[in-house]
Amino acid sequence: MSRNVTGPEIAELIQLLSKLPGLGPRSARRAALHLIRKKDQLMKPLANAMSVAADIIVECGNCGNIDTLSPCMICRDEKRDKSLICLVETVGDLWALERAEVIKGQYHVLGGTLSPLDGIGPDDLNINTLIERAKGEEVSEVLIALNATVEGQSTAHYITDMLEETDVKISRLAHGVPVGGELDYLDEGTLAAAIKSRKEM
Amino acid sequence: MSRNVTGPEIAELIQLLSKLPGLGPRSARRAALHLIRKKDQLMKPLANAMSVAADIIVECGNCGNIDTLSPCMICRDEKRDKSLICLVETVGDLWALERAEVIKGQYHVLGGTLSPLDGIGPDDLNINTLIERAKGEEVSEVLIALNATVEGQSTAHYITDMLEETDVKISRLAHGVPVGGELDYLDEGTLAAAIKSRKEM
Repeated sequence: MSRNVTGPEIAELIQLLSKLPGLGPRSARRAALHLIRKKDQLMKPLANAMSVAADIIVECGNCGNIDTLSPCMICRDEKRDKSLICLVETVGDLWALERAEVIKGQYHVLGGTLSPLDGIGPDDLNINTLIERAKGEEVSEVLIALNATVEGQSTAHYITDMLEETDVKISRLAHGVPVGGELDYLDEGTLAAAIKSRKEM
Repeated sequence: MSRNVTGPEIAELIQLLSKLPGLGPRSARRAALHLIRKKDQLMKPLANAMSVAADIIVECGNCGNIDTLSPCMICRDEKRDKSLICLVETVGDLWALERAEVIKGQYHVLGGTLSPLDGIGPDDLNINTLIERAKGEEVSEVLIALNATVEGQSTAHYITDMLEETDVKISRLAHGVPVGGELDYLDEGTLAAAIKSRKEM
Protein backbone atom coordinates (compact mmCIF):
# COMPACT_ATOMS: atom_id res chain seq x y z
CA MET A 1 0.00 0.00 0.00
CA SER A 2 1.59 3.20 -1.04
CA ARG A 3 1.78 5.45 1.95
CA ASN A 4 0.93 8.58 0.01
CA VAL A 5 -2.58 7.40 -0.87
CA THR A 6 -4.11 7.18 2.55
CA GLY A 7 -1.66 8.22 5.22
CA PRO A 8 0.29 6.02 7.62
CA GLU A 9 -2.61 4.76 9.78
CA ILE A 10 -4.05 2.39 7.19
CA ALA A 11 -0.58 1.29 6.11
CA GLU A 12 0.16 0.38 9.74
CA LEU A 13 -3.12 -1.53 10.03
CA ILE A 14 -2.39 -3.51 6.85
CA GLN A 15 1.16 -4.21 7.92
CA LEU A 16 0.04 -5.64 11.27
CA LEU A 17 -2.81 -7.64 9.72
CA SER A 18 -0.37 -9.22 7.26
CA LYS A 19 1.46 -10.78 10.23
CA LEU A 20 -1.54 -12.97 11.08
CA PRO A 21 -1.12 -16.58 9.98
CA GLY A 22 -3.02 -17.17 6.75
CA LEU A 23 -2.98 -13.52 5.66
CA GLY A 24 -0.47 -12.21 3.12
CA PRO A 25 -0.10 -8.62 1.92
CA ARG A 26 -3.00 -8.87 -0.52
CA SER A 27 -5.45 -10.50 1.87
CA ALA A 28 -4.33 -8.10 4.61
CA ARG A 29 -5.38 -5.21 2.36
CA ARG A 30 -8.73 -6.88 1.74
CA ALA A 31 -9.16 -7.47 5.47
CA ALA A 32 -8.30 -3.83 6.23
CA LEU A 33 -10.86 -2.58 3.71
CA HIS A 34 -13.44 -4.97 5.12
CA LEU A 35 -12.73 -3.71 8.64
CA ILE A 36 -13.01 -0.09 7.52
CA ARG A 37 -16.30 -0.79 5.78
CA LYS A 38 -17.63 -2.56 8.87
CA LYS A 39 -16.20 -0.06 11.32
CA ASP A 40 -18.90 -0.29 13.97
CA GLN A 41 -19.96 -3.91 13.50
CA LEU A 42 -16.46 -5.40 13.29
CA MET A 43 -13.41 -3.13 13.63
CA LYS A 44 -14.31 -1.54 16.96
CA PRO A 45 -15.55 -4.79 18.58
CA LEU A 46 -12.46 -6.66 17.35
CA ALA A 47 -10.10 -3.94 18.63
CA ASN A 48 -11.88 -4.13 21.95
CA ALA A 49 -11.82 -7.95 22.08
CA MET A 50 -8.07 -7.89 21.44
CA SER A 51 -7.43 -5.30 24.15
CA VAL A 52 -9.49 -7.30 26.63
CA ALA A 53 -7.79 -10.56 25.67
CA ALA A 54 -4.33 -9.00 25.89
CA ASP A 55 -5.13 -7.77 29.38
CA ILE A 56 -6.69 -10.80 30.97
CA ILE A 57 -5.33 -13.92 29.27
CA VAL A 58 -2.69 -15.82 31.20
CA GLU A 59 -0.95 -19.14 30.82
CA CYS A 60 -2.02 -21.80 33.31
CA GLY A 61 0.88 -22.35 35.70
CA ASN A 62 -0.09 -26.00 36.04
CA CYS A 63 -0.73 -27.30 32.51
CA GLY A 64 0.26 -24.48 30.11
CA ASN A 65 -3.25 -23.95 28.72
CA ILE A 66 -4.38 -20.36 28.23
CA ASP A 67 -7.25 -18.93 30.22
CA THR A 68 -8.26 -15.89 32.19
CA LEU A 69 -7.21 -17.49 35.45
CA SER A 70 -4.37 -19.75 36.56
CA PRO A 71 -4.96 -22.65 37.21
CA CYS A 72 -7.15 -22.83 34.13
CA MET A 73 -10.77 -23.99 33.94
CA ILE A 74 -9.74 -27.53 33.04
CA CYS A 75 -7.29 -27.83 35.94
CA ARG A 76 -9.90 -26.34 38.32
CA ASP A 77 -12.68 -28.66 37.14
CA GLU A 78 -13.30 -31.12 39.95
CA LYS A 79 -15.33 -33.42 37.71
CA ARG A 80 -12.36 -34.25 35.51
CA ASP A 81 -10.33 -37.38 35.94
CA LYS A 82 -7.15 -36.36 37.80
CA SER A 83 -5.49 -39.70 37.07
CA LEU A 84 -4.98 -39.03 33.35
CA ILE A 85 -2.73 -36.37 31.83
CA CYS A 86 -2.96 -35.94 28.07
CA LEU A 87 0.25 -34.39 26.69
CA VAL A 88 -0.22 -32.12 23.64
CA GLU A 89 2.16 -29.92 21.66
CA THR A 90 0.10 -26.73 21.56
CA VAL A 91 -3.00 -25.10 22.98
CA GLY A 92 -4.53 -25.53 19.51
CA ASP A 93 -4.19 -29.30 19.89
CA LEU A 94 -5.80 -29.08 23.33
CA TRP A 95 -8.72 -27.19 21.84
CA ALA A 96 -9.06 -29.80 19.07
CA LEU A 97 -9.31 -32.62 21.63
CA GLU A 98 -11.75 -30.61 23.74
CA ARG A 99 -13.95 -29.99 20.71
CA ALA A 100 -14.00 -33.74 20.12
CA GLU A 101 -14.87 -34.26 23.83
CA VAL A 102 -12.69 -37.33 24.00
CA ILE A 103 -10.48 -36.55 27.01
CA LYS A 104 -12.05 -36.82 30.43
CA GLY A 105 -8.76 -36.15 32.17
CA GLN A 106 -6.40 -33.21 32.30
CA TYR A 107 -3.87 -31.83 29.85
CA HIS A 108 -0.27 -30.74 29.73
CA VAL A 109 0.84 -28.38 26.96
CA LEU A 110 4.43 -29.09 25.93
CA GLY A 111 4.83 -25.86 23.97
CA GLY A 112 6.35 -27.41 20.84
CA THR A 113 8.70 -30.26 19.98
CA LEU A 114 12.40 -30.87 20.47
CA SER A 115 14.31 -29.42 17.55
CA PRO A 116 18.09 -29.26 18.04
CA LEU A 117 18.55 -27.53 14.66
CA ASP A 118 16.29 -24.69 15.80
CA GLY A 119 17.95 -24.62 19.20
CA ILE A 120 14.90 -26.00 21.02
CA GLY A 121 16.07 -28.37 23.73
CA PRO A 122 14.32 -30.04 26.69
CA ASP A 123 14.63 -26.91 28.83
CA ASP A 124 12.65 -24.87 26.30
CA LEU A 125 9.63 -27.16 26.66
CA ASN A 126 7.38 -27.84 29.64
CA ILE A 127 8.96 -31.22 30.29
CA ASN A 128 10.11 -30.75 33.89
CA THR A 129 6.67 -29.63 34.99
CA LEU A 130 5.22 -32.74 33.31
CA ILE A 131 7.59 -35.02 35.23
CA GLU A 132 6.66 -33.27 38.48
CA ARG A 133 2.96 -33.68 37.75
CA ALA A 134 3.43 -37.32 36.73
CA LYS A 135 5.05 -37.99 40.12
CA GLY A 136 1.91 -36.75 41.86
CA GLU A 137 -0.08 -39.35 43.76
CA GLU A 138 -3.26 -38.97 41.77
CA VAL A 139 -1.72 -39.45 38.34
CA SER A 140 -1.69 -42.98 36.92
CA GLU A 141 -1.42 -42.45 33.15
CA VAL A 142 0.21 -40.02 30.71
CA LEU A 143 -1.31 -40.19 27.22
CA ILE A 144 1.20 -38.77 24.74
CA ALA A 145 -0.90 -37.05 22.05
CA LEU A 146 1.86 -35.32 20.11
CA ASN A 147 1.57 -34.91 16.36
CA ALA A 148 2.41 -37.99 14.28
CA THR A 149 5.31 -36.11 12.67
CA VAL A 150 9.00 -36.98 12.88
CA GLU A 151 9.54 -34.16 15.42
CA GLY A 152 6.48 -35.12 17.45
CA GLN A 153 7.42 -38.79 17.58
CA SER A 154 11.08 -38.24 18.47
CA THR A 155 9.95 -35.88 21.23
CA ALA A 156 7.49 -38.55 22.37
CA HIS A 157 10.32 -41.07 22.68
CA TYR A 158 12.44 -38.63 24.67
CA ILE A 159 9.57 -37.94 27.05
CA THR A 160 8.80 -41.65 27.40
CA ASP A 161 12.40 -42.13 28.56
CA MET A 162 12.09 -39.26 31.02
CA LEU A 163 8.85 -40.67 32.43
CA GLU A 164 10.42 -44.09 33.08
CA GLU A 165 11.52 -42.86 36.51
CA THR A 166 7.87 -42.38 37.51
CA ASP A 167 5.34 -45.17 38.03
CA VAL A 168 2.80 -43.91 35.54
CA LYS A 169 1.51 -45.85 32.59
CA ILE A 170 2.59 -44.22 29.32
CA SER A 171 0.33 -44.51 26.28
CA ARG A 172 0.12 -42.95 22.84
CA LEU A 173 -2.60 -42.35 20.27
CA ALA A 174 -3.37 -45.24 17.90
CA HIS A 175 -2.25 -45.02 14.27
CA GLY A 176 -4.66 -46.03 11.52
CA VAL A 177 -7.00 -44.96 8.78
CA PRO A 178 -8.74 -41.64 9.63
CA VAL A 179 -12.50 -42.03 9.91
CA GLY A 180 -13.92 -41.08 6.50
CA GLY A 181 -10.48 -41.39 4.92
CA GLU A 182 -9.89 -42.96 1.51
CA LEU A 183 -7.17 -45.58 1.29
CA ASP A 184 -5.98 -44.25 -2.05
CA TYR A 185 -4.91 -40.97 -0.42
CA LEU A 186 -3.11 -42.45 2.58
CA ASP A 187 0.64 -42.93 2.82
CA GLU A 188 2.23 -46.35 3.17
CA GLY A 189 3.18 -45.83 6.81
CA THR A 190 -0.43 -45.22 7.80
CA LEU A 191 -1.65 -48.23 5.80
CA ALA A 192 1.03 -50.45 7.35
CA ALA A 193 0.07 -49.27 10.84
CA ALA A 194 -3.63 -49.82 10.14
CA ILE A 195 -2.99 -53.37 8.96
CA LYS A 196 -0.65 -54.20 11.81
CA SER A 197 -3.22 -53.01 14.37
CA ARG A 198 -6.20 -54.54 12.56
CA LYS A 199 -9.23 -55.44 14.67
CA GLU A 200 -11.68 -58.31 14.42
CA MET A 201 -15.05 -57.36 12.92
CA MET B 1 -14.17 -23.44 20.33
CA SER B 2 -16.06 -24.80 23.26
CA ARG B 3 -16.80 -21.96 25.61
CA ASN B 4 -16.11 -23.98 28.71
CA VAL B 5 -12.41 -24.49 27.92
CA THR B 6 -11.22 -20.92 28.11
CA GLY B 7 -14.05 -18.59 28.97
CA PRO B 8 -15.98 -16.24 26.72
CA GLU B 9 -13.23 -13.71 25.94
CA ILE B 10 -11.22 -15.97 23.61
CA ALA B 11 -14.41 -17.33 22.04
CA GLU B 12 -15.45 -13.75 21.28
CA LEU B 13 -12.02 -12.97 19.79
CA ILE B 14 -12.16 -16.06 17.55
CA GLN B 15 -15.71 -15.34 16.51
CA LEU B 16 -14.82 -11.80 15.41
CA LEU B 17 -11.61 -12.89 13.67
CA SER B 18 -13.56 -15.48 11.68
CA LYS B 19 -15.54 -12.63 10.09
CA LEU B 20 -12.44 -11.32 8.33
CA PRO B 21 -12.33 -12.20 4.61
CA GLY B 22 -10.00 -15.15 4.07
CA LEU B 23 -10.32 -16.48 7.63
CA GLY B 24 -12.65 -19.35 8.47
CA PRO B 25 -13.28 -20.85 11.92
CA ARG B 26 -10.11 -22.93 11.86
CA SER B 27 -7.78 -20.17 10.68
CA ALA B 28 -9.46 -17.75 13.10
CA ARG B 29 -8.50 -20.10 15.94
CA ARG B 30 -4.92 -20.22 14.65
CA ALA B 31 -4.87 -16.43 14.34
CA ALA B 32 -6.21 -16.03 17.88
CA LEU B 33 -3.54 -18.35 19.29
CA HIS B 34 -0.88 -16.50 17.31
CA LEU B 35 -2.12 -13.17 18.69
CA ILE B 36 -2.13 -14.53 22.24
CA ARG B 37 1.41 -15.85 21.83
CA LYS B 38 2.55 -12.50 20.41
CA LYS B 39 0.60 -10.42 22.87
CA ASP B 40 2.96 -7.47 23.11
CA GLN B 41 4.45 -7.56 19.62
CA LEU B 42 1.20 -8.04 17.72
CA MET B 43 -2.09 -8.21 19.62
CA LYS B 44 -1.76 -4.91 21.50
CA PRO B 45 -0.39 -2.92 18.51
CA LEU B 46 -3.08 -4.36 16.22
CA ALA B 47 -5.86 -3.55 18.72
CA ASN B 48 -4.47 -0.04 18.92
CA ALA B 49 -4.13 0.37 15.14
CA MET B 50 -7.76 -0.70 14.73
CA SER B 51 -8.98 1.74 17.37
CA VAL B 52 -7.03 4.57 15.77
CA ALA B 53 -8.26 3.67 12.28
CA ALA B 54 -11.87 3.38 13.46
CA ASP B 55 -11.64 6.84 14.99
CA ILE B 56 -9.98 8.80 12.23
CA ILE B 57 -10.79 7.18 8.89
CA VAL B 58 -13.49 8.91 6.85
CA GLU B 59 -14.84 8.54 3.34
CA CYS B 60 -13.85 11.32 0.96
CA GLY B 61 -16.97 13.37 0.22
CA ASN B 62 -15.70 14.08 -3.25
CA CYS B 63 -14.51 10.76 -4.68
CA GLY B 64 -15.43 8.05 -2.14
CA ASN B 65 -11.83 7.09 -1.32
CA ILE B 66 -10.98 6.50 2.34
CA ASP B 67 -8.55 8.71 4.17
CA THR B 68 -8.09 10.56 7.42
CA LEU B 69 -9.42 13.80 5.91
CA SER B 70 -12.15 14.67 3.43
CA PRO B 71 -11.38 15.62 0.67
CA CYS B 72 -8.79 12.84 0.54
CA MET B 73 -5.09 13.18 -0.23
CA ILE B 74 -5.63 12.43 -3.91
CA CYS B 75 -8.40 15.01 -4.31
CA ARG B 76 -6.30 17.57 -2.42
CA ASP B 77 -3.18 16.91 -4.49
CA GLU B 78 -2.70 19.97 -6.70
CA LYS B 79 -0.18 18.17 -8.89
CA ARG B 80 -2.75 15.69 -10.15
CA ASP B 81 -4.51 16.08 -13.46
CA LYS B 82 -7.99 17.45 -12.69
CA SER B 83 -9.22 16.75 -16.22
CA LEU B 84 -9.29 12.96 -15.84
CA ILE B 85 -11.55 10.98 -13.51
CA CYS B 86 -10.88 7.25 -13.27
CA LEU B 87 -14.01 5.37 -12.17
CA VAL B 88 -13.37 2.26 -10.05
CA GLU B 89 -15.65 -0.16 -8.24
CA THR B 90 -13.94 -0.22 -4.85
CA VAL B 91 -11.22 1.45 -2.83
CA GLY B 92 -9.22 -1.77 -3.29
CA ASP B 93 -9.24 -1.17 -7.05
CA LEU B 94 -8.11 2.42 -6.46
CA TRP B 95 -5.21 1.14 -4.36
CA ALA B 96 -4.26 -1.33 -7.08
CA LEU B 97 -4.09 1.43 -9.70
CA GLU B 98 -2.14 3.67 -7.32
CA ARG B 99 0.36 0.90 -6.64
CA ALA B 100 0.86 0.62 -10.41
CA GLU B 101 1.28 4.42 -10.58
CA VAL B 102 -0.60 4.55 -13.86
CA ILE B 103 -3.26 7.19 -13.16
CA LYS B 104 -2.12 10.80 -13.06
CA GLY B 105 -5.68 12.08 -12.64
CA GLN B 106 -8.30 11.69 -9.95
CA TYR B 107 -10.62 8.84 -9.00
CA HIS B 108 -14.24 8.19 -8.31
CA VAL B 109 -15.21 5.14 -6.24
CA LEU B 110 -18.54 3.73 -7.41
CA GLY B 111 -19.00 1.51 -4.37
CA GLY B 112 -19.95 -1.65 -6.27
CA THR B 113 -21.87 -2.60 -9.38
CA LEU B 114 -25.53 -2.52 -10.36
CA SER B 115 -27.18 -5.75 -9.30
CA PRO B 116 -30.98 -5.74 -9.52
CA LEU B 117 -31.18 -9.26 -8.07
CA ASP B 118 -29.37 -8.07 -4.94
CA GLY B 119 -31.48 -4.91 -4.83
CA ILE B 120 -28.55 -2.65 -5.76
CA GLY B 121 -29.83 0.08 -8.06
CA PRO B 122 -28.31 3.34 -9.36
CA ASP B 123 -29.21 5.18 -6.17
CA ASP B 124 -27.14 2.78 -4.09
CA LEU B 125 -23.98 3.67 -6.00
CA ASN B 126 -22.06 6.95 -6.26
CA ILE B 127 -23.39 7.63 -9.76
CA ASN B 128 -25.06 11.00 -9.20
CA THR B 129 -21.92 12.46 -7.66
CA LEU B 130 -19.95 11.20 -10.67
CA ILE B 131 -22.33 12.96 -13.10
CA GLU B 132 -22.01 16.16 -11.04
CA ARG B 133 -18.21 15.94 -11.12
CA ALA B 134 -18.20 15.15 -14.84
CA LYS B 135 -20.19 18.33 -15.47
CA GLY B 136 -17.44 20.35 -13.78
CA GLU B 137 -15.48 22.68 -16.05
CA GLU B 138 -12.11 21.10 -15.44
CA VAL B 139 -13.13 17.51 -16.28
CA SER B 140 -12.63 16.38 -19.87
CA GLU B 141 -12.44 12.58 -19.62
CA VAL B 142 -13.95 9.79 -17.53
CA LEU B 143 -11.98 6.54 -17.74
CA ILE B 144 -14.25 3.65 -16.75
CA ALA B 145 -12.00 1.14 -14.97
CA LEU B 146 -14.63 -1.26 -13.66
CA ASN B 147 -13.89 -4.97 -13.46
CA ALA B 148 -14.16 -6.90 -16.72
CA THR B 149 -16.99 -9.00 -15.27
CA VAL B 150 -20.55 -9.18 -16.52
CA GLU B 151 -21.71 -6.94 -13.64
CA GLY B 152 -18.86 -4.49 -14.15
CA GLN B 153 -19.45 -4.21 -17.87
CA SER B 154 -23.23 -3.82 -17.68
CA THR B 155 -22.71 -1.12 -15.04
CA ALA B 156 -20.18 0.52 -17.36
CA HIS B 157 -22.77 0.64 -20.13
CA TYR B 158 -25.36 2.17 -17.83
CA ILE B 159 -22.91 4.83 -16.68
CA THR B 160 -21.84 5.55 -20.25
CA ASP B 161 -25.50 6.28 -21.06
CA MET B 162 -25.81 8.55 -18.04
CA LEU B 163 -22.65 10.45 -19.01
CA GLU B 164 -23.97 11.14 -22.52
CA GLU B 165 -25.62 14.30 -21.20
CA THR B 166 -22.20 15.71 -20.28
CA ASP B 167 -19.51 16.73 -22.76
CA VAL B 168 -16.77 14.52 -21.39
CA LYS B 169 -14.92 11.91 -23.35
CA ILE B 170 -15.71 8.43 -22.03
CA SER B 171 -13.04 5.72 -22.24
CA ARG B 172 -12.55 2.22 -20.90
CA LEU B 173 -9.58 -0.03 -20.15
CA ALA B 174 -8.23 -2.05 -23.09
CA HIS B 175 -8.87 -5.80 -23.22
CA GLY B 176 -6.02 -8.10 -24.15
CA VAL B 177 -3.44 -10.61 -22.98
CA PRO B 178 -2.18 -9.82 -19.45
CA VAL B 179 1.53 -9.01 -19.41
CA GLY B 180 3.29 -12.27 -18.52
CA GLY B 181 0.14 -14.26 -19.32
CA GLU B 182 0.20 -17.57 -21.17
CA LEU B 183 -2.19 -17.92 -24.09
CA ASP B 184 -3.04 -21.48 -23.14
CA TYR B 185 -4.64 -20.30 -19.90
CA LEU B 186 -6.70 -17.45 -21.34
CA ASP B 187 -10.37 -17.65 -22.24
CA GLU B 188 -11.63 -17.27 -25.78
CA GLY B 189 -13.13 -13.83 -25.14
CA THR B 190 -9.76 -12.42 -24.05
CA LEU B 191 -7.98 -13.99 -27.03
CA ALA B 192 -10.60 -12.64 -29.44
CA ALA B 193 -10.26 -9.14 -27.93
CA ALA B 194 -6.47 -9.31 -28.10
CA ILE B 195 -6.57 -10.26 -31.78
CA LYS B 196 -9.21 -7.69 -32.67
CA SER B 197 -7.13 -4.92 -31.04
CA ARG B 198 -3.80 -6.18 -32.36
CA LYS B 199 -1.02 -3.62 -32.76
CA GLU B 200 1.70 -3.33 -35.36
CA MET B 201 5.13 -4.42 -34.16
